[in-house]
Amino acid sequence: MIPKNHPRYESLILREKIKIAYKEGYLADSGMIAHGRGETFDYLIGEKTIESAYKAIEISIATLILAKNPVISVNGNAVAIAIDEIIELSKVLNCKIELNLFYRTKKRVEIIEKIFKSKGINILGANDNDLLFINGINSPRATADKNGIYDADVVLVSLEDGDRAEILVNSGKKVIAIDLNPLSRTAKMANITIVDNIIRAIPTMKEIAIDLKNKDKNYLKKIINDFSNEENLKKSLKAIKSNMNQ
Amino acid sequence: MIPKNHPRYESLILREKIKIAYKEGYLADSGMIAHGRGETFDYLIGEKTIESAYKAIEISIATLILAKNPVISVNGNAVAIAIDEIIELSKVLNCKIELNLFYRTKKRVEIIEKIFKSKGINILGANDNDLLFINGINSPRATADKNGIYDADVVLVSLEDGDRAEILVNSGKKVIAIDLNPLSRTAKMANITIVDNIIRAIPTMKEIAIDLKNKDKNYLKKIINDFSNEENLKKSLKAIKSNMNQ
Repeated sequence: MIPKNHPRYESLILREKIKIAYKEGYLADSGMIAHGRGETFDYLIGEKTIESAYKAIEISIATLILAKNPVISVNGNAVAIAIDEIIELSKVLNCKIELNLFYRTKKRVEIIEKIFKSKGINILGANDNDLLFINGINSPRATADKNGIYDADVVLVSLEDGDRAEILVNSGKKVIAIDLNPLSRTAKMANITIVDNIIRAIPTMKEIAIDLKNKDKNYLKKIINDFSNEENLKKSLKAIKSNMNQ
Repeated sequence: MIPKNHPRYESLILREKIKIAYKEGYLADSGMIAHGRGETFDYLIGEKTIESAYKAIEISIATLILAKNPVISVNGNAVAIAIDEIIELSKVLNCKIELNLFYRTKKRVEIIEKIFKSKGINILGANDNDLLFINGINSPRATADKNGIYDADVVLVSLEDGDRAEILVNSGKKVIAIDLNPLSRTAKMANITIVDNIIRAIPTMKEIAIDLKNKDKNYLKKIINDFSNEENLKKSLKAIKSNMNQ
């Protein structure tokens, strides 16, 4: 339907995926609106992976390689636009995948669980009986699978709510966030923030993971230590403002 | 449902209105995503009416007062979030209101026509038999009601597609655009661009219309002549970047 030479081809394809996910019943209407918010941020960033994002990706991969129990957290939007890319990354990094829905309903969980199953993946977070409250915080934002995020040392989140990110960080886990808004609470809260669209960031993460897996662990520790997320976020913001001038 | 003291109360109320419009069947799924794009721009602008927008509003109202046949163009999103405000403004300015849907379906047109009727307004653009192609351009972007936009000298559009804005401008009409993105094609194409959320801009326009209606016409002509949309757009962009630094 959308011609490949359309100047906004990539963006329109993602938009179609979001609409399909909504129609399939696993994306909330708020997820459609959230996608629109992301479209604007991606437009402002120039719909490309900026230098600071590459840096954050490198540090994230080093952190995930050194992790004992890393988990990739997914929500409806992430499943809608990047499920295959997420699965590929999880395989390279030996990460579990856990579902965490802001608007959790039985139906949405079942549909997403089934989609992952059809791709040979058992996702965590789908079974209510396996959910515990992080730090005993009695909130839907604080639930985590006892076999996944609850015991994880590193969690990769994308398009994540600020309250949720705060709970994860306060529980002592290292949080890696993919967030197109460098000013968001999640972006500021996370230990490492990748200011990029997940559809570009995750395949890049996979490539860098293949590369860094063979590196010496002390090298990985060193680049992590040398990294300042605050400085890197400033660079991302500067890149957005500079792109707006063009 | 949403507590009035919620820090994002206004924004959440608009989001609810959009969801309701979608459920009522007159807003396209793309309209929900478009609302999300607007949310980001409004967030970046600080969710307030900036000085350059006040200036553009003043010039717009002067232009609308001097117009012979001004029309306010509405789409699904405008109806969803600001129908009452639009009707009030149209009354103060003696403007017609015309419906122009990007994703026009018979059902959507009927629902919106009915909503306006319930508020005592006969909107233009609803009857296919009254639609003509502007400049003979055979495109759904070029249709206009023969009793409204087709013969209008000034058109107020909000949340408008760039192709449509271009057709209106090229037909010699003066176009006033309310658009939160100062970099958009519509914003650049329009004769006057109000970089603001319609939910704030339109009530402000009404207040200023009441004020300017009593002014001397030569005064109105003078302030219009002194105005540069290009300069004003630069100020809007500067305000957004300055807000991002805070």
